[in-house]
Amino acid sequence: MAARKTSVLLFFFMFLALSSAFPRNKNKYKPCKHLVLFFHDIIYNGKNAANATSAIVAAPEGANLTILAPQFHFGNIAVFDDPITLDNNLHSKPVGRAQGMYIYDTKNTFTAWLGFSFALNSTDYQGSINFIGYDPILIKTRDISVVGGTGDFFMHRGIATINTDAYEGEVYFRLKVDIKFYECW
Amino acid sequence: MAARKTSVLLFFFMFLALSSAFPRNKNKYKPCKHLVLFFHDIIYNGKNAANATSAIVAAPEGANLTILAPQFHFGNIAVFDDPITLDNNLHSKPVGRAQGMYIYDTKNTFTAWLGFSFALNSTDYQGSINFIGYDPILIKTRDISVVGGTGDFFMHRGIATINTDAYEGEVYFRLKVDIKFYECW
Amino acid sequence: MAARKTSVLLFFFMFLALSSAFPRNKNKYKPCKHLVLFFHDIIYNGKNAANATSAIVAAPEGANLTILAPQFHFGNIAVFDDPITLDNNLHSKPVGRAQGMYIYDTKNTFTAWLGFSFALNSTDYQGSINFIGYDPILIKTRDISVVGGTGDFFMHRGIATINTDAYEGEVYFRLKVDIKFYECW
Repeated sequence: MAARKTSVLLFFFMFLALSSAFPRNKNKYKPCKHLVLFFHDIIYNGKNAANATSAIVAAPEGANLTILAPQFHFGNIAVFDDPITLDNNLHSKPVGRAQGMYIYDTKNTFTAWLGFSFALNSTDYQGSINFIGYDPILIKTRDISVVGGTGDFFMHRGIATINTDAYEGEVYFRLKVDIKFYECW
Repeated sequence: MAARKTSVLLFFFMFLALSSAFPRNKNKYKPCKHLVLFFHDIIYNGKNAANATSAIVAAPEGANLTILAPQFHFGNIAVFDDPITLDNNLHSKPVGRAQGMYIYDTKNTFTAWLGFSFALNSTDYQGSINFIGYDPILIKTRDISVVGGTGDFFMHRGIATINTDAYEGEVYFRLKVDIKFYECW
Repeated sequence: MAARKTSVLLFFFMFLALSSAFPRNKNKYKPCKHLVLFFHDIIYNGKNAANATSAIVAAPEGANLTILAPQFHFGNIAVFDDPITLDNNLHSKPVGRAQGMYIYDTKNTFTAWLGFSFALNSTDYQGSINFIGYDPILIKTRDISVVGGTGDFFMHRGIATINTDAYEGEVYFRLKVDIKFYECW
């Protein structure tokens, strides 16, 4: 039993060491535009209504809307409206909002399905960026698809590499989003 | 090597210069296909089961499924099956159905995240169009992404400009959708 | 100026002529990559927790999370984590997971809106494929959009033709997914 645990742990760390979800290398393409942004998610837990930026709105049978569901949160859908900042400080001036949903969708580990947009409104960028993708949360960097954009991101496509930059229990997480556009128009 | 780096940098800055030369105006592109359609949404409120075309199916803690949630409907997910018409008349013959979901996702104003499809079935068009995007509802015209299509819209991409053409309390709204395809195949 | 307008119009009508020349048949394009995979969905019904791979997490007013909703399941959202196999056998070794959600979205027939990803992890393929689309379930083959990918499917786009390969009451279904990529990078 102890041996099995150790080997599971070993496998886990080897996996982390690899550290990107699908490490085969596509570096031959150069992005035509590149942005690095952070967004900050504070999950409503029944007590933090004033600060919360997201809320559980769907849950599997037997679970509720203030505690994430027991089996690795499988079946929870959260809606969010999170501030986007240029650095990793929650209190920096936001340059836009990250809005949409995440869905926890595995029973025996943490993964999510993401559907959301960045709405950017700064002197540098005005427009929206639309994201879709599979997010194996425990892996250091994960790639999702940029499927479209509007305004300054008119018709853009690309890849966003996301990275959990900070995590505080089940209340706060911060994602670093490295957006590489390969179709720019 | 240094020379190469310089030229790469030069190219990069030329690119930046170009890509910010017309940052707010993308009229230089001509659509390869253009459609204007309307769709009509009647939200279920507990009393209009016969006519309703959409229903609230998820809500934040404390809210229910017949009254939109108190903080600008934050956290509500609605599923819809709305008739699509060629003009602004709810009773015109439908040319297809708009189906999918909208998610209210701001606490201090009205915005939505949209994920839906048009299924068109008329003599003019047979096929589906898939939309994703950020919708700041109170703004007159908003752009979302057309991320794909099938049938007559095989592999198409583009931008849909949506516009709330009518709004009656919290029961009915009508959206005008001006779809400009820029990739047609 | 008039000449330019004429030539633009000419171009426009030539374009229309071309775009309606093969309006229902897009076989002229050859896929640059082609995959056929199966995935298997076992819906949680309150009794099959050990085997279930999906769960109803949202339902319209009056419905619950263990029985699909009465009007052709309208308003149900299910979250899934389904094994992907190379053949039609549920017990074959999985080559990845299909994860995301389906939304039943018609009151008088069976249709769904799909938002999900394939996460493939085999010797042949490592990467994710992201799907969006309208699914008229009762029709034999339906097309949805492949809107992006990562890893071995970096920036890919295409069409997936899905086909309900088996269906057992309201507990199990198996989908055959024939993925044709037309943009491969």
